[in-house]
Amino acid sequence: MTETMQRIVLASRPVGSPKPENFRLESTDIPTPADGEVVVKLHYMSLDPYMRGRMDDAKSYAAPVPVGGTMEGGSVGEVIASNSDKFAVGDFAFGMFGWATHGCLPASEMQKLNPAHGPIKSALGVLGMPGFTGWLGLNKYGRPQSGETLVVAAATGPVGQMVGQLAKLKGLRVVGIAGGAEKCALAVEKFGFDACLDHRAYSDAKSLRGALKDACPDGIDIYYENVAGKVLDAVLPMMNVAGRIPICGMIAWYNPDASMLDGPDNLPKMWRSILVKRLSVNGFIIFDHNDRYVEFLKEVGPMVATGKIAVVEDIVEGLENAPKAFMGLLEGKNMGKLMVKIS
Amino acid sequence: MTETMQRIVLASRPVGSPKPENFRLESTDIPTPADGEVVVKLHYMSLDPYMRGRMDDAKSYAAPVPVGGTMEGGSVGEVIASNSDKFAVGDFAFGMFGWATHGCLPASEMQKLNPAHGPIKSALGVLGMPGFTGWLGLNKYGRPQSGETLVVAAATGPVGQMVGQLAKLKGLRVVGIAGGAEKCALAVEKFGFDACLDHRAYSDAKSLRGALKDACPDGIDIYYENVAGKVLDAVLPMMNVAGRIPICGMIAWYNPDASMLDGPDNLPKMWRSILVKRLSVNGFIIFDHNDRYVEFLKEVGPMVATGKIAVVEDIVEGLENAPKAFMGLLEGKNMGKLMVKIS
Repeated sequence: MTETMQRIVLASRPVGSPKPENFRLESTDIPTPADGEVVVKLHYMSLDPYMRGRMDDAKSYAAPVPVGGTMEGGSVGEVIASNSDKFAVGDFAFGMFGWATHGCLPASEMQKLNPAHGPIKSALGVLGMPGFTGWLGLNKYGRPQSGETLVVAAATGPVGQMVGQLAKLKGLRVVGIAGGAEKCALAVEKFGFDACLDHRAYSDAKSLRGALKDACPDGIDIYYENVAGKVLDAVLPMMNVAGRIPICGMIAWYNPDASMLDGPDNLPKMWRSILVKRLSVNGFIIFDHNDRYVEFLKEVGPMVATGKIAVVEDIVEGLENAPKAFMGLLEGKNMGKLMVKIS
Repeated sequence: MTETMQRIVLASRPVGSPKPENFRLESTDIPTPADGEVVVKLHYMSLDPYMRGRMDDAKSYAAPVPVGGTMEGGSVGEVIASNSDKFAVGDFAFGMFGWATHGCLPASEMQKLNPAHGPIKSALGVLGMPGFTGWLGLNKYGRPQSGETLVVAAATGPVGQMVGQLAKLKGLRVVGIAGGAEKCALAVEKFGFDACLDHRAYSDAKSLRGALKDACPDGIDIYYENVAGKVLDAVLPMMNVAGRIPICGMIAWYNPDASMLDGPDNLPKMWRSILVKRLSVNGFIIFDHNDRYVEFLKEVGPMVATGKIAVVEDIVEGLENAPKAFMGLLEGKNMGKLMVKIS
């Protein structure tokens, strides 16, 4: 008897914010691994803002998920069948298996995990793509110098956690922006940020900027961009000469219907800031930098193991709850790195 | 008897494009040099787009010209009185003497010129600030690689001339954009560009982009930004992954009344391009890079002397004609590096 698995497919493309009807839970047979392939029973799955982009068919750095296709995403689990000599049953692995209870990939696209080095779900967050994104963007494009001031939004998200804590360790003043008093308290008390502003407490960019001026008396040298919108508008005039803006995301603008609601009111103003302040603005996609992943693990792994870098995760139970959790993520409802516990 | 000199002052701040009434020609006494100062009779004066910025009192990288103050600008001439042991009467010098027939500056703010090395007016163009800007921006922020494609607007201006010719020498495909068929012919025939598009022949960004697609079959790796507006809008979607945009000017947006007439229609679109294409966008101001001027002279000076780099200058006679020439510069009426011959 063939065993069945569950998966979540893209039922239709969202217009604006994703709605429950854009997703569909399906049952299907667990695949039999072809030559070189491995089947994994998934334990934890990651939910990340970039997935919103995959739901559109706009030209991007990655192909869109086709309608009817399994939603894309990274997950970790245990090998239950292998047709490759690189993985044995019982091994643990990470791969882009999609939103599903089981996944099948060529061994060459999977990464073996050693549970002795810490919980395997770390490969989805602090020691996975989000943590690596924070580390790479901060170091390569942010070029932090002791004594400077860094601002990062989504401060308690998995990227913000990493960016802020690494910057603190390098001697910067770190100011977070987050949604709600509870997240702000977490940023300061758990992650050691110097200050964290609740963007919900400020009705517009101007009032948020007023609060930022108090929190950043020497201006802003690095704005680690992951949200855009109102925060970008508030931050931009406060950038110091020779400031740096690494861009790894723009969550406020992922839903196109929101695109003009917030943000600097015109592009010439932004372009002028880049020129006049001699800013360095760099977009980057973490998948371009895989050659530095081992360097990241070597540097940050021990920091996590010793507690120098704190970790907060938000774990939702059950694959069927992934769409709701993902919609909440885009509204900032999660507290820390969002994952789904599958089995 | 004290001799008199002429100067042009800012009579009032322009609203939008500068008008004749924003300038005033005045007579005043030639100053007597204080201790350490030098008086120069000016031969040639430079006109450059950045001067438009100095006419506003908006916060910028340099203080605005005060109303009633002498218009700012660089010029070259001959020393006629010196109270410094660094300059003797008869020496030639460059300095920011302003729009005037004579100027007085501390010797420490002047640069001695050797007429044996070529015409002293080169210090205003090809071997001065504009040429240096082109060289620095191309090399430091453009990072040109043989086989890549570069687009530069204001192609026959002093910066565009330098950028395009240096890029050709490095083995890039070079496509210029300029206003009018005559300039386009100059770019191709005199400066050796592979192609040059007349932006006046295209009514909007979309049609300009259509022509750019033919001229840049492999996309665009470097957009050397000096005009913004419609050209930026046309170029942006054509940027290749890992493309570079050095920003040294945005002439289309210097007149604030024109700011929304052209250009990408919203900032989220631009921000998204930077992220998705992993662009590197760097604003720079040449005055930050003075420590590399000698390196530039050493590299480019011989190229000019041997004709490897061609030079085209547009010379207007008489200080009193400077405002009209400057207004024409902002409308693209000059053909090559614009200067005023003063005496």
